[in-house]
Amino acid sequence: MAEATGNSIPVAQLTAFTEAALVAVGLAPADASTVAWALVEANLEGIDTHGVSRLALYAHRVKAGLAAGRPTMRLTHPAPAVGMLDADNALGPLAATAAMDEAVRLAREFGVGMVAVAHTNHAAALSSYTERAAAQNCFAFMVCNTPPGMPPWGGTQALLGTNPMSFAAPGPTADQPPVVVDLATTVVARGNIIMAARQGQPIPEGWAIDAQGNPTTDAKAALTGAVLPMAGPKGYALALMVEMLAATLTGAGWGPNVHSPYDDWTQPTDAGLWCLAIHVGPLMSAEAYASRLGGLLDAIHAVPAAPGATIRVPGERRAEVRARRLAQGIPVDAATRKELDALAAEVGIAPLDGAN
Amino acid sequence: MAEATGNSIPVAQLTAFTEAALVAVGLAPADASTVAWALVEANLEGIDTHGVSRLALYAHRVKAGLAAGRPTMRLTHPAPAVGMLDADNALGPLAATAAMDEAVRLAREFGVGMVAVAHTNHAAALSSYTERAAAQNCFAFMVCNTPPGMPPWGGTQALLGTNPMSFAAPGPTADQPPVVVDLATTVVARGNIIMAARQGQPIPEGWAIDAQGNPTTDAKAALTGAVLPMAGPKGYALALMVEMLAATLTGAGWGPNVHSPYDDWTQPTDAGLWCLAIHVGPLMSAEAYASRLGGLLDAIHAVPAAPGATIRVPGERRAEVRARRLAQGIPVDAATRKELDALAAEVGIAPLDGAN
Repeated sequence: MAEATGNSIPVAQLTAFTEAALVAVGLAPADASTVAWALVEANLEGIDTHGVSRLALYAHRVKAGLAAGRPTMRLTHPAPAVGMLDADNALGPLAATAAMDEAVRLAREFGVGMVAVAHTNHAAALSSYTERAAAQNCFAFMVCNTPPGMPPWGGTQALLGTNPMSFAAPGPTADQPPVVVDLATTVVARGNIIMAARQGQPIPEGWAIDAQGNPTTDAKAALTGAVLPMAGPKGYALALMVEMLAATLTGAGWGPNVHSPYDDWTQPTDAGLWCLAIHVGPLMSAEAYASRLGGLLDAIHAVPAAPGATIRVPGERRAEVRARRLAQGIPVDAATRKELDALAAEVGIAPLDGAN
Repeated sequence: MAEATGNSIPVAQLTAFTEAALVAVGLAPADASTVAWALVEANLEGIDTHGVSRLALYAHRVKAGLAAGRPTMRLTHPAPAVGMLDADNALGPLAATAAMDEAVRLAREFGVGMVAVAHTNHAAALSSYTERAAAQNCFAFMVCNTPPGMPPWGGTQALLGTNPMSFAAPGPTADQPPVVVDLATTVVARGNIIMAARQGQPIPEGWAIDAQGNPTTDAKAALTGAVLPMAGPKGYALALMVEMLAATLTGAGWGPNVHSPYDDWTQPTDAGLWCLAIHVGPLMSAEAYASRLGGLLDAIHAVPAAPGATIRVPGERRAEVRARRLAQGIPVDAATRKELDALAAEVGIAPLDGAN
C-alpha cells in the first residue's frame, strides 16, 4: 500500500508534540510520555483511528477536569497472582500500561498474572499493551468496556460497548513479529464510523442501526444509534463477556454508566480494563516454541489462496506498516492535522512542522 | 419450545447406559462416570450435537486402541499458578474435567489459575467445564483445538479447526443461572453439519466450502471441505489464538496434526485444551457481585426488542432446557438411538428402555 509522505510527521516529532500537549494541560512529564507512546504506537501500526486523532479529546477531557491530570493510581493484591488497580480517573494509556506491566510481573512470578482496572478512560489501541507484554515473552490478553454502542442481540437500543479484545504472543523467533489479534466485538470499531463521519463518507450496510433502531448507511446517524455485533449473537455474547471482565470484576461503570468522552462533558468516563499475562518461559524451551509456532505459521502461509486473496497471519500487516512509518514518518490526515494545530494554539505549544 | 417426550430417556437411565458402555470398552468405573456426566450434561442443556450422539465414537476409539481406556494422566506445575496436564490420550472429558478442577484449585490459592492440556481427544461441550467452575464461584474460560475444518482467511483449504471457546460466570445470585458463552469460531459448529449430513438435510449458504474451495449447501460435501470462520477475518484470528493456546502452549498437535476421530482410524487425535479460572471471592462481596451483574443483566432485559425478537442473556435458554429435561427426560433422535442400540449389542450391555 503506497502512502503519501508529503504530510508525514517523523515519529520523534509526533511523540514530542503529543507529550508537550499533555504536559501543557497538566500531566507529569513521565505520564505524558507514556500516553504519547501509546497514541503514537497505534499510529505506527496503522491504527490511525486510535492514534493522535484522539489527542485533542484526551487533552480536552483533562482540561475540563473530567479525566485526572495528576491521578493517584492505587494497586492492591486481593490474591497472590491478581492485581486490582483503581486508576483514579487516569487517562486510559496510563492505567493500561501500569496494569499490563504488573500482569507481566505477576506472570513472571506465578506463571500467570491478572490485573483488573476500575475507573479509567479511553485506552487507545489495546494491542499496544498486549504487544508490550509479548515483547516480555508472554501471551497476553486485554479487554475494555466502552460507552454503549451495541444492542444486545434482538434489541433496538445500544447498551453494551463495542467492547474490544486483544491477544498477542511473541513471534516464533526474536526476528519475527508478534502474532496480534485486536478486534472490536462489533462488525467494525466505532472509530471507523467516527472517521467516516468526520470525512463525510457513508458506511456500508449491515454496520449499524440509527437512533430509532433502523438500519442506516449514514455515519452520523449511526453514531447516534448502535453498531451491530460481529457474527450476530456470538459477537453479543463476547461483548457481554468483555463487559463482565471489565466492569463486573472491577467495579468500573457498566453499560450506560460508561459515559461517552465525546458526548458527555459532565462526568468521567469510568471505563474498566482487564488484562492477563502468561509467561511462556517456564512452559517450554525457546527451540520448542520456535518449532511449534513457526510450523503453524508456515503451514498457514502454505495454504493455497483464493484468487486475488493474500493469506496473512494477524500482526504481519502492522509489522510492515511499523517498518515503513518508522522510516518515512506517520501520515496525518488533514482533519486530524487541523485539530492538532488548533490544540497547539489552544494550549500554547509549537505546532507540528510542515504545511497543514 | 415443545419437545416430543415419547422417545425421551430419563437422565439417570441415559447416564447409567453411557457409563456401562464405557466400562464395557475398558474404562475404570470412575472415569466412565466422568465421561458420562460430560456427555449427558451436554444433552441436558440442549447441546445434542455434543452429547450421547458422540458416545459410539468415543467407545469405538477406545476399542480400536486410538484413545486410552486406562490413561495415566500426569500433572506438573512449571510455575506456581500453572498446571500442565499430559493427558496420555485420555478421552477429552476426563482431561477437561481434571484440568478445570485443577484450575479452580489454583484460582482458590492464587486468585487465578491456568491449566494447559496436551494429548487428548474430543471433549464434548466446553461449557460443561466452564459451568462446573462457575458453580465454584469462578469466572472460567476453556478453549480447545480440533481437526482442520476452517481455512485461514483468504485460503481455500482447511487448516485450523472450528476451535471453540467457552466462558462462564456465576449468576448474580445462587438461584439464577450462570452466564454461559459457548461458541465455535466458525459460522457454525461442525457438529451442526455432522447432524445435517446424518439427517440428509442441506446446510445454508455461507456456512462452508467443499473440498475444491467452492461454496456448497451439501452437508456431506462440506464435511470434506471447510467451514468458514465467523465474522470473516476476526473469526480466523480468534481460531488462531485458540490454536496457539491449545497447541503451541501445550505441545499437543496443531493444524493437520490433530487427527479427525471420525476419519482417521490409524492414530490418536492428539488435541489440546487450555483453561483458566478466576476466583471471584477475593475480588468483591457477594452483595457487590449481585448488584453489579444483576444490574447489568436487568438492563439487558429492559432494552426494547425488535418485532418478533426476544432478548436473552447467554445461558438462560440452556437453563430452561435443563429444567425441562431433568423433569421430562432427554429426547434422543432416531439416528442416535439406532447407533446406541447397535453399540449396546456390540459391547454386550442392555439397551435403553422403550421403542427405537
